[in-house]
Amino acid sequence: MKIGIVGYGNLGKGVECAVTNSKDMELIGVFTRREPSTLKTLTQAPVYSMDCIYEKKDEIDVLILCGGSANDLPKQTAELAKHFNVIDSFDTHANIPEHFAMVNSASMEGKHISIISVGWDPGLFSLNRLYGQAILPHGHDYTFWGKGVSQGHSDAIRRIEGVQDARQYTIPVEGAMEKVRNGEHPVLSAREKHTRECFVVAKEGADLARIEEEIKTMPNYFADYDTTVHFITQEELNAHHKGIPHGGVVLRSGTTGLHDEHKHVIEYKLTLDSNPEFTSSVLTAYARAAYRLAQEGQYGCKTVFDIAPAYLHEASGEELRKKLL
Amino acid sequence: MKIGIVGYGNLGKGVECAVTNSKDMELIGVFTRREPSTLKTLTQAPVYSMDCIYEKKDEIDVLILCGGSANDLPKQTAELAKHFNVIDSFDTHANIPEHFAMVNSASMEGKHISIISVGWDPGLFSLNRLYGQAILPHGHDYTFWGKGVSQGHSDAIRRIEGVQDARQYTIPVEGAMEKVRNGEHPVLSAREKHTRECFVVAKEGADLARIEEEIKTMPNYFADYDTTVHFITQEELNAHHKGIPHGGVVLRSGTTGLHDEHKHVIEYKLTLDSNPEFTSSVLTAYARAAYRLAQEGQYGCKTVFDIAPAYLHEASGEELRKKLL
Repeated sequence: MKIGIVGYGNLGKGVECAVTNSKDMELIGVFTRREPSTLKTLTQAPVYSMDCIYEKKDEIDVLILCGGSANDLPKQTAELAKHFNVIDSFDTHANIPEHFAMVNSASMEGKHISIISVGWDPGLFSLNRLYGQAILPHGHDYTFWGKGVSQGHSDAIRRIEGVQDARQYTIPVEGAMEKVRNGEHPVLSAREKHTRECFVVAKEGADLARIEEEIKTMPNYFADYDTTVHFITQEELNAHHKGIPHGGVVLRSGTTGLHDEHKHVIEYKLTLDSNPEFTSSVLTAYARAAYRLAQEGQYGCKTVFDIAPAYLHEASGEELRKKLL
Repeated sequence: MKIGIVGYGNLGKGVECAVTNSKDMELIGVFTRREPSTLKTLTQAPVYSMDCIYEKKDEIDVLILCGGSANDLPKQTAELAKHFNVIDSFDTHANIPEHFAMVNSASMEGKHISIISVGWDPGLFSLNRLYGQAILPHGHDYTFWGKGVSQGHSDAIRRIEGVQDARQYTIPVEGAMEKVRNGEHPVLSAREKHTRECFVVAKEGADLARIEEEIKTMPNYFADYDTTVHFITQEELNAHHKGIPHGGVVLRSGTTGLHDEHKHVIEYKLTLDSNPEFTSSVLTAYARAAYRLAQEGQYGCKTVFDIAPAYLHEASGEELRKKLL
């Protein structure tokens, strides 16, 4: 199947690697709003201007959209869904229903397949919340994130006066996770679930105490958490905090039996060296599903909830039953 | 949807509880090969003879088959699949392709839906092997079982001369799991992955040393493992070892990036107080899927690989996208 990538940030590069690692896929090229000649791809894949994307329509089976959820995808996915099979990783949870409606109507009009909100959360974590609830209807859901870098929180720190650079780690509280694993289903506040650790490079002469205070009291981002602030040099940040690890845990703690006498815990845990590369790998697997659904003549917008797992795997149904069931 | 249960052992009882706990399901009755009047169900559900099952055909949307994989399901599933939508938990991994072929041909003939090998292994563990491979094609799979009771190993000990009762626990080796979690992808022998712990009640005057030796050297079951044997009284066994806990872990350890430079670990872990009740809960969720697929006019044999997750959950697609994605 022939894949096109739209947007070439961390996610686009990750998809480029994932497609290259998939024997049944071929990368047609990267589409960008930048001047194509200024981009050099990791695998020497050709770069085209977004303005030419409709000319390549017949060469592309699935477009993987690698833009951001804030500014790119809300318009782009629906526009392209009229003409292409598309996958995106739209992750603004509250706006998913609206995004779904727009993309669905575009896909129906163009008789194409679209799959939105693909990744790990939304995505694989959502799947595990669904499976958990369906199997243990009497129960409680828990999601813990981290240890990992939150780009949003890192950006919020960088906007503070006197801050030159910053990296923020979201860290799940081990004790809280242990309680859930033991089937206790505790009620947990934001503070009881996660702590926040910040590595900050201050500009010369900046007031460190004021910066620390501004971070710790920042509403929504930090005020509701126990936050630790470390001031370090730019060299230290570059040496030790340039990676983009992430991960987390989805737990379903539930009971069965006539009197709910038996406890069960389902745990799904991700430990990721590179958040964007893992998300890209999920997107690429769902591109395979989009291609196969389109081959069957299906169309409209789907989410991970609507995709039978077998569509994601290179092997045939027969092989899967023999080797993996 | 109206559910019938075939077979009333631990699994059948678990399904009875799970159906009772599902708001959108109604239990029509339990079908048994025993004399119906000798069976008392947990919820006063009616009990019918297997001989009358075809008379109830129009009252039943899905039959959940709760017999054993050794003697019941190989014939029963295919026979009933001609006339009913059916779910089974056939778990003899090596014979799944053959079982699938027979059940599929019966379901196609009767234009009904069947879903085979539903539970946690095969079942949820299989799903996680599939998702893991599809997302991280460069990687390694690991499955650890336990801590939990193995019925097969307990039975094997009971067949030894001088043994009155026994219970065997399969225990995963923590150090081996830690290596996998750290992304080391070790090559592990059977002995390095699991240990076996046996609680044995000997008959009066039996030769304990000979029993212990026979257990530890039993081919296939124990010879390839580090096995511990504890002799206890029947009272102790009854007091502390009558539960049927189980569980385990599926891990996918893989790499991404152009030079496989980033490591990722996906872990799926089950901790179950009651192995049969949890399996029953999985069966019951897939019965919902079978009902919905049949309503759509689909037919033939499926496995968990072929079922889109949304079919398992009571809520509508719209609600799922809003609340769980």
